[in-house]
Amino acid sequence: MAEDRKQIGMIGLGAFGRFAAGHLAPHFDLLGHDPQAAELPGLVRVRLEAAAACPVVVLAVPVQALEQTCQDIAPFLPEGALVLDVASVKVEPMRAMRAWLPAHVRIIGTHPLFGPQSAAKGLAGQSIVLCPDTGVDAAPVAALCEGLGLEVHLSDPDTHDRAMANVQALTHLVSRVIAELDIPPPPYTTKSYDLLRQATDLVRNDSDDLFQAIEQLNPYAASLRKRFFEAARAFDGRLEARTGE
Amino acid sequence: MAEDRKQIGMIGLGAFGRFAAGHLAPHFDLLGHDPQAAELPGLVRVRLEAAAACPVVVLAVPVQALEQTCQDIAPFLPEGALVLDVASVKVEPMRAMRAWLPAHVRIIGTHPLFGPQSAAKGLAGQSIVLCPDTGVDAAPVAALCEGLGLEVHLSDPDTHDRAMANVQALTHLVSRVIAELDIPPPPYTTKSYDLLRQATDLVRNDSDDLFQAIEQLNPYAASLRKRFFEAARAFDGRLEARTGE
Repeated sequence: MAEDRKQIGMIGLGAFGRFAAGHLAPHFDLLGHDPQAAELPGLVRVRLEAAAACPVVVLAVPVQALEQTCQDIAPFLPEGALVLDVASVKVEPMRAMRAWLPAHVRIIGTHPLFGPQSAAKGLAGQSIVLCPDTGVDAAPVAALCEGLGLEVHLSDPDTHDRAMANVQALTHLVSRVIAELDIPPPPYTTKSYDLLRQATDLVRNDSDDLFQAIEQLNPYAASLRKRFFEAARAFDGRLEARTGE
Repeated sequence: MAEDRKQIGMIGLGAFGRFAAGHLAPHFDLLGHDPQAAELPGLVRVRLEAAAACPVVVLAVPVQALEQTCQDIAPFLPEGALVLDVASVKVEPMRAMRAWLPAHVRIIGTHPLFGPQSAAKGLAGQSIVLCPDTGVDAAPVAALCEGLGLEVHLSDPDTHDRAMANVQALTHLVSRVIAELDIPPPPYTTKSYDLLRQATDLVRNDSDDLFQAIEQLNPYAASLRKRFFEAARAFDGRLEARTGE
């Protein structure tokens, strides 16, 4: 372990945490904490206190556990530490981090717009959203992300959640409804169907925690779903009226 | 015009008829009939009687007009003519053609699983379904299609319509509901969203006639829509129950 390599504490080693660790391991010394996770090459398993004592701490826990995690790590964070989350919503995590982390740390909310499935072939061309807390310079993190091949979007939590209601709340909803139909593999398909299945297959194995975060912890998702169901119902009504069924 | 080139009568020169004519013109003498269509290179505009007098007649009219078209062309079809439709459903067109075309003609129902948008870059790798009437040899048409780069699927009308309810009735429904939401271009997206938009954009400009054929003239589409709306409603209910909204 080279002395001059920067240490990153990774808290939470679920599907995304492990995926991120794989891409960060060549560039950083990774100290990881997750009582439930298996061993991972390139990452030293440590107690929560040790992971939280790194100059950079990445919180890759389910968003539902973020508030508690912030409380747990608060006493161990070094002065001026950089803390990043990776949640799919940003308003609520930024609120939790601002509320529970010490005033001396720098907070950058991030949303990597990819995962182990959509970025299975690599990070090049994928995007990440950075929402720096007031007064925090996001440039070093942006440069790191760009170095990994990512396209970086600077945003604020509210803009992010509004946009993602239309993007992720929609795709996850459509994916779950289609999964429910349990359609057998068709003997022949159209290009449009193939694309629709690719779209839904990318997210159908996402965890229930992630689905819940996207549909219920995004303050704008309920409105998107309401409009989707209203449009579907209105449509159904028009078709029924025309067929007289 | 070489004497030995086979003549094809094209009846109906809407979006798909014109697209098909473009791909057939290098190989056949095309006699086209459609009172509402503009001129088209490689195709001679003729009266209905002349188009119907060809040894091969392609019916590219909206499926809603197919029964009337069969009645109109019946007196002019030469002995043993090959008649093909291109409708997105197959049970109803096959019934109409069998009912109204003379017994001496050979009928092959076809469903090209592509259109001017999805095959904008060419036919290679696209698919077509052939449903030959009882006793009709589909081999020459299959060979022609394969020569154009198409993958050929032999099927029967009932199997086709069952499969396409899950494929086309689903994609067109999802596409129309999403179009209804009128989502502004998001500042950043996910791969899953990009694929979903590509899927829906491929069919969102299809005609109302085609949409109606897919959703209302496919005997299995109503059941697919019912299951979709039930799954959506059940889902909505579960989310609302969890949030207590």
